[in-house]
Amino acid sequence: MATALKGNIAVGQSGGPTAVINSSLAGVIEEARKHSEITGVYGMWHGIQGFLKEELIDLYAQPAEIVQGLKRTPSAALGSCRYKLKDGDYERILNLFKQYNIRYFHYIGGNDSQDTSNRISKMAQEQGYELRVIGVPKTIDNDLSATDHCPGYGSVARYIAVSTQEMGKDTEAIGLVDNVKILEAMGRNAGWITAAAMLGKKDEDDPPHLIYVPERPITWDGFLGDVQRVYDRLGYCVIVVCEGLTDADTGEPITASASAVDVDSFGHKQMGGVADTLCKEIAARLKIKARYDKPGTIQRMSMALASTVDLEEACMIGAQAVREAVSGKTDFMVSFVRESNDPYRCGTGLVPLSDAALAEKKLPSDYINEAGNFPTERFAEYARPLIGGPLPEYVKLKRVWVPGGGRR
Amino acid sequence: MATALKGNIAVGQSGGPTAVINSSLAGVIEEARKHSEITGVYGMWHGIQGFLKEELIDLYAQPAEIVQGLKRTPSAALGSCRYKLKDGDYERILNLFKQYNIRYFHYIGGNDSQDTSNRISKMAQEQGYELRVIGVPKTIDNDLSATDHCPGYGSVARYIAVSTQEMGKDTEAIGLVDNVKILEAMGRNAGWITAAAMLGKKDEDDPPHLIYVPERPITWDGFLGDVQRVYDRLGYCVIVVCEGLTDADTGEPITASASAVDVDSFGHKQMGGVADTLCKEIAARLKIKARYDKPGTIQRMSMALASTVDLEEACMIGAQAVREAVSGKTDFMVSFVRESNDPYRCGTGLVPLSDAALAEKKLPSDYINEAGNFPTERFAEYARPLIGGPLPEYVKLKRVWVPGGGRR
Repeated sequence: MATALKGNIAVGQSGGPTAVINSSLAGVIEEARKHSEITGVYGMWHGIQGFLKEELIDLYAQPAEIVQGLKRTPSAALGSCRYKLKDGDYERILNLFKQYNIRYFHYIGGNDSQDTSNRISKMAQEQGYELRVIGVPKTIDNDLSATDHCPGYGSVARYIAVSTQEMGKDTEAIGLVDNVKILEAMGRNAGWITAAAMLGKKDEDDPPHLIYVPERPITWDGFLGDVQRVYDRLGYCVIVVCEGLTDADTGEPITASASAVDVDSFGHKQMGGVADTLCKEIAARLKIKARYDKPGTIQRMSMALASTVDLEEACMIGAQAVREAVSGKTDFMVSFVRESNDPYRCGTGLVPLSDAALAEKKLPSDYINEAGNFPTERFAEYARPLIGGPLPEYVKLKRVWVPGGGRR
Repeated sequence: MATALKGNIAVGQSGGPTAVINSSLAGVIEEARKHSEITGVYGMWHGIQGFLKEELIDLYAQPAEIVQGLKRTPSAALGSCRYKLKDGDYERILNLFKQYNIRYFHYIGGNDSQDTSNRISKMAQEQGYELRVIGVPKTIDNDLSATDHCPGYGSVARYIAVSTQEMGKDTEAIGLVDNVKILEAMGRNAGWITAAAMLGKKDEDDPPHLIYVPERPITWDGFLGDVQRVYDRLGYCVIVVCEGLTDADTGEPITASASAVDVDSFGHKQMGGVADTLCKEIAARLKIKARYDKPGTIQRMSMALASTVDLEEACMIGAQAVREAVSGKTDFMVSFVRESNDPYRCGTGLVPLSDAALAEKKLPSDYINEAGNFPTERFAEYARPLIGGPLPEYVKLKRVWVPGGGRR
């Protein structure tokens, strides 16, 4: 047991908000109260950027119902930022830590946030200032390599799975008119979110029919051929694509490589969204009507579709970060370690901060089919426990045709 | 009491699917079973288009759990269509009605569907074929003038209200980086859906800050001035716009009138989405970063955000159509008649089919503020009872600043 280190916690939220990052914040606050050496919890207003202006919220001053409410409130209650620290900033941060007697630092965020934590921790060590730094992972993209999954991912995965079921049912009904529907999912360079679109599919002909992820760049002929084949078979086609999809031939983002892409008045190609570009190309080259849905930030904020597993784990990992720090650990990020898949059980581990910010974790190759147009069952086994219970069971009418009619 | 007319019901779903149109179908089936003169309920597969091919589903052959499940399944379980009948089609439809002994016809749809019902009804009368035609309204657009509101509207209104709360919280947190966020709502020529974005707003500074509807075309200077003012005050701005917004100066859709709009390789302006166009214009002329969310068909399919009031009313109005027909009525559409607003009570009425398909109902002028950039409290009073209970209560941290910091 380490010596009790008396002082305050500084906690901040960084990067894109999620449905559960406030649940992690609640976990930090609730756990801190259990330890007498934690004299206060200071919330960095808009992350490290607000901290540099000494904008700190007193989190012990929050009523219990607000702390409870954080567990069901999406977005980042402290405000977020995407601020890359400059050289002089580190010195100033450390001085402020001393000034406010901050002895514990928990930054809730992705790659960049863990890197920031690491640098602050190293500087404190160089200067002999005792500081315990335990990072808390957060990113819907699920691209941190050092953890089984990231808080925030399960919820956006559930959102995409359910929304694909629902917009797929829309196209099943009205596909005679709106033939091709594309849903554009977030995820930048990794297909974790996009792949979750498969989780509500039961039968071969159910939507979605095609799913494309950045790990497998597309060729135009391949993509258009896929779409034509589904359309010829069913009369409609439902596709889910990642915003970061690229062109296999050029290596460029899809938006920059299409033939039907817009050109602005200076002759420069206009970067539209991926789905928009794919729709234009389908219309131009296949003469098939195509429309898209782009839920954008709604997908990472939806509380109605948040995963209960994700909400609980996010709170738990925030609390765990405090426990680890109080017990004397520093220079780590808390990670998830899956202990069992069926039944699902997940514990936590510790990853050195210097490793936490390493390479982006992408979909492994056996999570994507050979044709590069659909995830595999192995991906589904990985993702299913994270989305928090079964998906909605929507009914279909039994095809009992009236005798004498056109269908027998 | 009319003479009992023994025969079958034909029921169809038409136009854009909604979260509750299957609930209306369930209402028709359940009510029909209570009347011995109804010998069968035949579902038109993909509406009148499938009926012309004699594609009929036997709805009495559906297990009870499927009929119950329809009440919680979005989209159109029978399949939908947007088929404009040709002259010869009416004759054929009537012959098929005779062939299948169809004596009751309930078409669940919007303006066009009520018009179709009206024409079929008139032809049956001319030919002396006893047919009872009672239309069932359906449209998320809420633009049928003959009814207080339309089944489907309350659910999409709730979706937009909650999604605006949520994506607004996202921008509040990350607005330092993503300054302007636009949500594009459906609604073609009417702002009913878009206006519902105001329902989750409590405080003056809460998102959304600006809401634009087709009833009040914008000028570019007016719009950009509005955005700049909110941005100057808060550092970010959340906007909700209707897909059908137009330019006050040209009368054209916004997509065709922006200066920053895309031009294709032939020099033709490319029609993008409204939100996309507005974002480009904000970036080009105000130099402020702007992004958009376009939930598209997801907004009309979301069961997690469907209004319980809407789901129940949709079922009730389907049943009512059957009751009216059985009691001898024909040539009407069932309508909603609001009896009281607080507490909300709503009954049904009957509107001649010939009136049901009249002019689109738009937002009355006192539902929009003088500046044309936000709905009024009168709109909120109209819409609030329809969305099915209170919106989520998300918490905000109390701004208790740590003493000595940058905020006091």
